[in-house]
Order: sequence, then C-alpha cells, then structure tokens
Amino acid sequence: MSAPPPRPAAATPLAQFRRAGFGFELLARASSSAARAGLFRTPHGAVPTPAFMPVGTKGTVKGVFPRDLAAAGATMILANTYHLHLRPGEDLVAELGGLHRFMDWQGPILTDSGGYQVFSLGHISAIDEQGVTLRSIVDGSPVRLTPERVVDIERKLGADVAMAFDHCPADPSARADVEAACERTRRWLEQCVRRHREHGGEETGQALFAIVQGGVFEDLRRENARAATAHDLAGYAIGGVSVGEDRAQMRAAIEHATPHLPHDRPRYLMGVGTPEDFFDAVERGVDLFDCVTPTRHARNHNAFTSRGKLNLRNATYRSDPAPLDPECPCPACTRYPRAVLRHLCTSDEMLGPMLLTLHNLTFFHRLLARIRAAIETDTLADLRATLLPALQHPARDPATQ
Amino acid sequence: MSAPPPRPAAATPLAQFRRAGFGFELLARASSSAARAGLFRTPHGAVPTPAFMPVGTKGTVKGVFPRDLAAAGATMILANTYHLHLRPGEDLVAELGGLHRFMDWQGPILTDSGGYQVFSLGHISAIDEQGVTLRSIVDGSPVRLTPERVVDIERKLGADVAMAFDHCPADPSARADVEAACERTRRWLEQCVRRHREHGGEETGQALFAIVQGGVFEDLRRENARAATAHDLAGYAIGGVSVGEDRAQMRAAIEHATPHLPHDRPRYLMGVGTPEDFFDAVERGVDLFDCVTPTRHARNHNAFTSRGKLNLRNATYRSDPAPLDPECPCPACTRYPRAVLRHLCTSDEMLGPMLLTLHNLTFFHRLLARIRAAIETDTLADLRATLLPALQHPARDPATQ
Repeated sequence: MSAPPPRPAAATPLAQFRRAGFGFELLARASSSAARAGLFRTPHGAVPTPAFMPVGTKGTVKGVFPRDLAAAGATMILANTYHLHLRPGEDLVAELGGLHRFMDWQGPILTDSGGYQVFSLGHISAIDEQGVTLRSIVDGSPVRLTPERVVDIERKLGADVAMAFDHCPADPSARADVEAACERTRRWLEQCVRRHREHGGEETGQALFAIVQGGVFEDLRRENARAATAHDLAGYAIGGVSVGEDRAQMRAAIEHATPHLPHDRPRYLMGVGTPEDFFDAVERGVDLFDCVTPTRHARNHNAFTSRGKLNLRNATYRSDPAPLDPECPCPACTRYPRAVLRHLCTSDEMLGPMLLTLHNLTFFHRLLARIRAAIETDTLADLRATLLPALQHPARDPATQ
Repeated sequence: MSAPPPRPAAATPLAQFRRAGFGFELLARASSSAARAGLFRTPHGAVPTPAFMPVGTKGTVKGVFPRDLAAAGATMILANTYHLHLRPGEDLVAELGGLHRFMDWQGPILTDSGGYQVFSLGHISAIDEQGVTLRSIVDGSPVRLTPERVVDIERKLGADVAMAFDHCPADPSARADVEAACERTRRWLEQCVRRHREHGGEETGQALFAIVQGGVFEDLRRENARAATAHDLAGYAIGGVSVGEDRAQMRAAIEHATPHLPHDRPRYLMGVGTPEDFFDAVERGVDLFDCVTPTRHARNHNAFTSRGKLNLRNATYRSDPAPLDPECPCPACTRYPRAVLRHLCTSDEMLGPMLLTLHNLTFFHRLLARIRAAIETDTLADLRATLLPALQHPARDPATQ
C-alpha cells in the first residue's frame, strides 16, 4: 500500500456520480492513508460511510426490533437472497410489498447473492459453468441458482442494492481454483449485468454491485477488478475474504483490488469483521462492511466494549455493579449493571441476548461513526493508536481496575 | 353466587383503607354481579383493577423490554421468590438496589412466595410441619424454605407486595390433604405475619398478602379465609386454583372464599388465566390476576386475537396479508402482515416470539381495560356476551371470511 500525496485535512466535497436515485459523494480523504469518508445515496436514504451493515439473513436482524436497529445507529442492513428464496420465497415477499415492508425497515437494504452460501454450504452444493445446485437447508430439495435466476430473485425481493452472483473459492491461495472462480465470476457478472438491464437497471430503484474475486493473487485481483469495473456499476465489492485466511492475506486482497476500483463508487468488503479489520480496511479505501459478528456474539453472551471483549456468563461479573461499558449509551449499558446482564445470560433468558445484541450493534455503529469523524479531521491514525490497544484485550477484572 | 341488590350504574367512590403507601379504593360496582372496579395503591404507583400482572419469574418477563411492557399496558408485574432465591440470590438483588432496579421496572411488583413451586415441583420437594425442602433446579442442592425464611427473602428482594408462604395441595378435591394444607397455611400465615411485622410491616414499603386455601370445599375455604382476614392485611389471594381442576371447581373455589374476604382489600386469583376465566372471576369479585399464558403461548407461536386464538406456524397464514388482529394497536399487528409473522415463527427467529409476546400482553391488558370500563358503565354482562363467543373459537380461515 502506498500513501497518496498529502492533502488538506478539512473535509473536501468531491464531484461524484449520481444516477437514478443512487450516488456516492466523497466528503473527505485522509492524508496518510487511502481512507475516505463519503455518503452513499440510495432510493431509501443516504448512508454515511464508512458504515457497518447489520445482517438480517432471513429478513430479520436476529433479536432486534427494527425501531431499535435504527436507534443503535444502523443506516443500511443486509438480507440474504439464498435464504429468502428458500423461505418464504421471493414471490411472497414481492406479493407482500417487497423486502422493505417485509422487514419493516424503510432505510436502504442490500441483498447478498447466495455466492457466499456456495462456499459456506460447500458440502451440499455442486458448481458448474452455468451455475450452482445446492440442497435446500429447509427441506433437502435441490435448488438451482444461475446468474440470471439470482438477479430475478433479487429484483423480486426489491432491495436497494443487489449483489451479482459470484463464485467464492474455498481456498484463496489455491491458484488454479481461484483462477477458475475468477473466470466464472467474470462471465457470470456479464450475465447478471445483462439481466439487470433487462429488468430496467437502476431506474427500477435497484442498483447492482459487482464482486471482485482473486484470492491472495495480485494479478488475479487486478484482472478481476478490471473486468468488473468495465461494467460501470453503482458499487464494487471485494469478495473471497473472511473465508479462513489470515489477516495479512485479507489486507493483501484489499490492497490488490482497491487500486483498480473507481474512486467515485463505494467499495464493500464482504463478511468483515472486527474493530481491527475496520481500521485495516478503511485505511485501504473500503467504505462498507457487513458481518454477523456483533449479533452472533451477543447470542453467545459476548460483548464488545471500549475496554475489550467480555463474556457475560463469566463468574467475574456475578456481583459487578458497573455498567457493561461506561462509554456506551445503549439500554444494556444505561439501565442494567453487569451483574443483572450476567444473571439474564446464565439463566438463558431472551432478554440477555436481546440487550447484548443492541449493545454490540451500538458499539459497532459508534466505532464506525468515530472512524468517519476521524477521517474528516484527518486523525484516523491517532484514533487507531488510542482505541485499538484497549479494544483488543479482554476487559480487566473490575476488582483490579 | 347470589347477586347483590341493584345499585346505581354510575361509578361510586367508596371509602377504603389507606395505610403506609398502600390503599385500595373501590370506584364502581356492577349491579348484577360482584364485579368491582378499583384502584390498588402501592409505593410504586397505583394499579387500576381488575388487572392482569405479567409474570417475570426470574426477574424478566420473557422476551420483553420493560419499556415495551409498560407500552403494552402492564401496571404491576410478578417475580418469583423461589427462583430468584436460587439464582442470583436475594442478597445480590438487595446489594444491586432491589428488585425494581434489578428488573428495570419502576412500577409495582409482587413476589410469589414459592408455595406454588412446592406443588409444581412436587416430585423434588418434601413438605413437613415446619416448611419445605426442595431440590434446587439450578444445581440439585437441597433448599429449605420456612415461613420466616420466605418472608426474609421477600424483604430483601423488596417487591411492593410479598405473598405469604402457603401450602398449595396437589388435588383440591382430596379432603384430608386439603384439610392438612389449610391447617399449615393458617399456621404459616401467623408466622409470616409475625416476621413481616418484625421487619417493620408495611412501613418498609412492602405489604403482605395472605393466601386462602381450601380446595373445592366450602367450609374449608370459609375457615381458611376467616383465619386469613383475622390478620387485617393489605390484600388476600385465592390459591390452590389453576392446578388442573375444572372450570366449575375454580368458580366454586372463588365463590366459597370471596364472601369471607373484606370488600375494601384487593382479591388476587393466583395463576389465572384465560379470557373466559377473567369474566368468571371478575363477576365473582376478583381484582388481580397473573398467569404465564400470554408469554408462554407467544413463545409457542400462539396468539390471542379478538377473533380467537391462532397458531402462527399454521400453513393457513402462509401468504395472509391481513394484520394478526385488526383491532390491536401493538407493533405485531400494525407493522407486519400475518404472513411475515408466520415466516418469523417457522424460521425460529427470535423476533417472532418477541412480537407475539408484545401482542398477547397487549391483548390481555386491553381485555382487562375493557372489563374495567364495562364495570364502570355497568355493562359487564353485555361485554361478556359480545366478546366471549368470538374469543373462544379458533380464528376463521381468512379464505372463508
């Protein structure tokens, strides 16, 4: 990664694309990294970037009322095409008025294409040149996905952003496999773009994002990024990360792809991640993230706090009167001592995961808000140095604080 | 049950007891039944009666944020002494500031005494003349409960109302067993009253309610009620119902007890019930109810509606665009079609039970509010005739409506 030339620290609005309700304005860039702050416009509202998108796989962010999702700081959320296709089916979602009504979420929504499920459900999927056949996780019946079919399903679901159907290879360092996946991803993107245009393109209120594959290989990432950007789409994603590779490989994948992506379109790093990942990726020019981490960890009673991660079932907190995180304004932190949260978690009461989910989402969204503010004041490196060491250690025993 | 003499229909404030932050004002009485509308005052606020109290056994009404509990119409809630004694322990609750802070509920709270658990956990409990030994459902260790011990625990928990420790017999029609249970209940109440006074009585902000046993036997209910009222307490409960007896037996138990309870104290029918039960009991002079029905049914995807009970996992609702209950103002009914609620339930998403719990509680509290209003306008019989037939049938298939 090479640093761009020094720039003035103040926020600098830069001319950007604007098309059919979509747009991306760059508001500020960091002087010592590729970090940028922007505003991604969609027909359902604008998303200040960098942003984290909570995951609502089956049409609900697990354990959260949509009203509380917005209060926690979410602006844009995800749903999954493959899961919603299986149940309840895209026709029913369309019949009921589309995904925004279905999820009771009037902000922007993005649908993942199912490409990642081809990887994550690899044991029950078979890939060929035309598409993928998976076994339904609902009833075991075979499900056929092709690029056209996926775009058709996403059109009916009606999210603001539809992800193209890609092939996410299982091992990002197995060159032959990654080459084949890149070739399929390139060809399938052409088919997705054609089908998306047949449906009316962005004028329908739905933009298509391409996904760049290429594993850990600089040449493959470059070629795949160039093939993707040839289509002039509303945004570009970096896929094939968060599949078990190490942190250096993830950083390399970003560094290999971003130089070949247009500056005036949002860049979305799929399936990432942790606070450290956010800094790593934002410094390399990434704008959007999604991950199940905050919600899944909450259901396992793990909380992210300004002093590190902690597990609320731990006996350490048995009689701890302190708030979960004294810096957090969420209901879990302002209305309950840790000891009560621990009681709810050890008693397997729903309220435990409900409160921790709100907390973790609030933590993630506030972290991204601080990152945005630091880009605008060009103090991102300072924020990283101040914040990250405390976040990466387990919270200290209150008795020793 | 004999009807009282006719009275004017208008609300008639009647002089009532008032003591140390507690009081009960009768605001209206029905002309053709023993139904009455009142206001039960506690140090944490007043409860318009008849009222339904949601059950928060372990310190949380399952699946509900306290803020939403109030919005659903709850004024007073329950917690359970036995469960909270086991985990997290009354000392910790006291240390953290008492049950109101622990539950994040600033309204009135009542703690059940554990007497019911002696019945419901009968297979792991042994009763003697001095108290009960149960096996802990947390770790299997023996737990000894005596009348004094229970009052001590309840004092530390710090609810507005503490229930006396009673013996709830398993079979309300086995005379010898019920007689023995009445005798223990009478003797234990004396011990509870003494201990409660030693702690400072109602001046501490906590009132003691007695529980009347006696099964299906008129003479035993009468004797037990007279023994209880000799203590001049802030309220009286009818126990030993909702243990598997039929509806006629439950009505008989109420009719045998209420004539011997003072008019100017609230009467609480423990563990009841269903919409039909509320009418039956209110007509016989009952003011307070608690039951796990609305919350437990919600977790099993059952909803109470103005047109009957329905199970949201039923295929009938697969593509049903109608609201769950068109007459209900809760988030489940105003923000989602039945088809989405069914999707959430069949997909085992937390949001399904979360929404149905809010709905069922809203339904119960609105039903009780209508019952109160009908008593005030002396139209309770009309309300029963209008409302109950629709409530008691399964909701019709929307295709045939």
